Amino acid sequence: MHDTFARRMSTVHRSFIREILKVTADPEIISFAGGLPNPELFPVASMDQASHRVFADIGASALQYSTTEGDAGLRAIIAERYAKRGLTVDPDSILITSGSQQILDISAKVFLDKGDKVVIERPGYLGAIQAFSLFEPEFVTVSLDHDGPDLDELEAAFKDGAKCFYAVPNFQNPSGVSYSLEKRRAVAELTDRYNVLFVEDDPYGELRFLGEHLPTVFSFCKQPGLLCGSFSKIAAPGFRIGWVVAPEKVVYDKLVIAKQAADLHTSTVSQSIMRRYLEENDIEKHVALIRERYGRQRACMVEMIGKYFPDGVTITRPEGGMFLWVTLPEGVSSMDLFDAAIKEKVAFVPGRPFYVDGSGENTLRLNFSNSDEVRIEEGISRLGRAIGAFLK
Amino acid sequence: MHDTFARRMSTVHRSFIREILKVTADPEIISFAGGLPNPELFPVASMDQASHRVFADIGASALQYSTTEGDAGLRAIIAERYAKRGLTVDPDSILITSGSQQILDISAKVFLDKGDKVVIERPGYLGAIQAFSLFEPEFVTVSLDHDGPDLDELEAAFKDGAKCFYAVPNFQNPSGVSYSLEKRRAVAELTDRYNVLFVEDDPYGELRFLGEHLPTVFSFCKQPGLLCGSFSKIAAPGFRIGWVVAPEKVVYDKLVIAKQAADLHTSTVSQSIMRRYLEENDIEKHVALIRERYGRQRACMVEMIGKYFPDGVTITRPEGGMFLWVTLPEGVSSMDLFDAAIKEKVAFVPGRPFYVDGSGENTLRLNFSNSDEVRIEEGISRLGRAIGAFLK
Repeated sequence: MHDTFARRMSTVHRSFIREILKVTADPEIISFAGGLPNPELFPVASMDQASHRVFADIGASALQYSTTEGDAGLRAIIAERYAKRGLTVDPDSILITSGSQQILDISAKVFLDKGDKVVIERPGYLGAIQAFSLFEPEFVTVSLDHDGPDLDELEAAFKDGAKCFYAVPNFQNPSGVSYSLEKRRAVAELTDRYNVLFVEDDPYGELRFLGEHLPTVFSFCKQPGLLCGSFSKIAAPGFRIGWVVAPEKVVYDKLVIAKQAADLHTSTVSQSIMRRYLEENDIEKHVALIRERYGRQRACMVEMIGKYFPDGVTITRPEGGMFLWVTLPEGVSSMDLFDAAIKEKVAFVPGRPFYVDGSGENTLRLNFSNSDEVRIEEGISRLGRAIGAFLK
Repeated sequence: MHDTFARRMSTVHRSFIREILKVTADPEIISFAGGLPNPELFPVASMDQASHRVFADIGASALQYSTTEGDAGLRAIIAERYAKRGLTVDPDSILITSGSQQILDISAKVFLDKGDKVVIERPGYLGAIQAFSLFEPEFVTVSLDHDGPDLDELEAAFKDGAKCFYAVPNFQNPSGVSYSLEKRRAVAELTDRYNVLFVEDDPYGELRFLGEHLPTVFSFCKQPGLLCGSFSKIAAPGFRIGWVVAPEKVVYDKLVIAKQAADLHTSTVSQSIMRRYLEENDIEKHVALIRERYGRQRACMVEMIGKYFPDGVTITRPEGGMFLWVTLPEGVSSMDLFDAAIKEKVAFVPGRPFYVDGSGENTLRLNFSNSDEVRIEEGISRLGRAIGAFLK
């Protein structure tokens, strides 16, 4: 048996969410557990056309090895799209990655020694917790209020010698919380003051259906760290194309080395098709379509929760993204509720895995992007029934 | 500045080969430096058709997130292809990876603690040296004879407490050397006896144009380790699809955890197109075409070396693959020769980066897969001239 594993493997486990997804494969279950974009909105015909054009026009070079940095045309388009939103980004500071998950792996590889302090939000994004855990940091968590992190806790963590701060300031997964303009400025000021690397993960930023677009924390930093983006939520996740903006050349070069060692480069086929799709289609119009749909689904879910959930249950009211966060009365276990909910044929993700400190027992995550309004009404009424019975 | 990097980054550098490729971008230079398959042989029209069928038939699901383990149909095809060559493999023991480079990263992550002893061939595959280096092992090298590793050196390394042995037994990159049947059995026996994990990398195994197909070392092991494969050399590298066979369930599960943290899963688009291509085309016929072409190019290169290289220069005579290895007389530096060769408008890769111990100064690698016979004759005559002038 070859079962003498590296020490780092002892702290990580298979994603709890992926295990839950297996339980919810039953088609009778209405699942708010997943984190999937709505496939009805995928631009299938346009991608078909784009891929045909790629093979017809550039043929073999779309099938060949390519550079670690990524397709130059694709990086130029990403930079142009940032410019439209008021952010100047040098295409040469953009590294294409195999989904934005890969950025978490390579940035941890580049920056983290065992025991380094990494600050994350509480609750925090599970994919980041998993990727970082393999490099054995010490996690320090800061509470997430309705408008962003608790600044006193954040400063205390920074003072205590944090190496980096990882956060999702727009419509966070799992909580749906967004940072206010004031907190964005304050976070930037603190990361600059304490020279903490801020890793800003922004997969949902364009999916805002309420309120006004707010600038990235990155744009307020005098010494910007890393800004991570992805095509998964605005086009389609199956391509596995994300990117990281790393303005400091010395940092960019290290990320390239780590990326090269990880997979040489991201699929040339995926990149070529995505680039062609972006060149020949109006992605802004497509994103508007997604926003409109998710906005309706989110409104429906909030309304139905008001109608079907018992008193004492509170929720976040996300202005965008794909998730909404539920807090049950103190002392109630969402893990136990999960089993009761499955009997009612409805599923969610219990909140505890999003807390590295083992708290969050009375919380849970609901996804609204991947269910239409009919299923949302039915699912929320089932869940309300399960919670009601449970609270008695 | 965010320039406080993890300790592991101090030992690794940007790939020397990739830097060389920049020098050789000049179209007047005949380059034997790269490691590219011949793009003239890429099945562009079939891939175009396959991708259209994917979008037309399964549409949105080819664009959605998918499982970490990889497409079940694709894994079944890989298992069937092994069966044709006499190797029984359970599709559930196959994990699809983002190129076979990713296996090196995730297997190092799963198995290696800092200071663990990793045995590699001397010279060794550069991509593996880079991937492993990030996990700070102690490299132990064993000489590569014309028929495989020196068995005494290998046993001594195993006795000294090696954790794993990484090797490319078929037409190795960089040397072109293949293991004899006897050495395959002996290596399997030794890895079993000392309980060393054998990581067998086999990207070129199907590209044999001389001699008889030999079984994998993996097939001789009583406790088989990991067998790595790839579509890069038999179909096209741009998809970034490799795989690893891990028969021990406990090992497979750990690799899945590491893969999930690294990039969630390999491009659904890439996997779907590759699967459809394999279902609707005769890949064996296609591989035969590649073998025939590379065989001719290799024969031409060996012949021209006989004609144009001065005495005192020795070469390997690969029975397959993409590379051939040149040894200059003792004391001659291939690094210095490189500059002289560039003046003659011909390029190769100096051998030193393939030696972790800094030796190999008088060696170099030539690629024969990506040049036709006309360019091979002209390039080898230029290189012969450069070597001749250099040895005077």
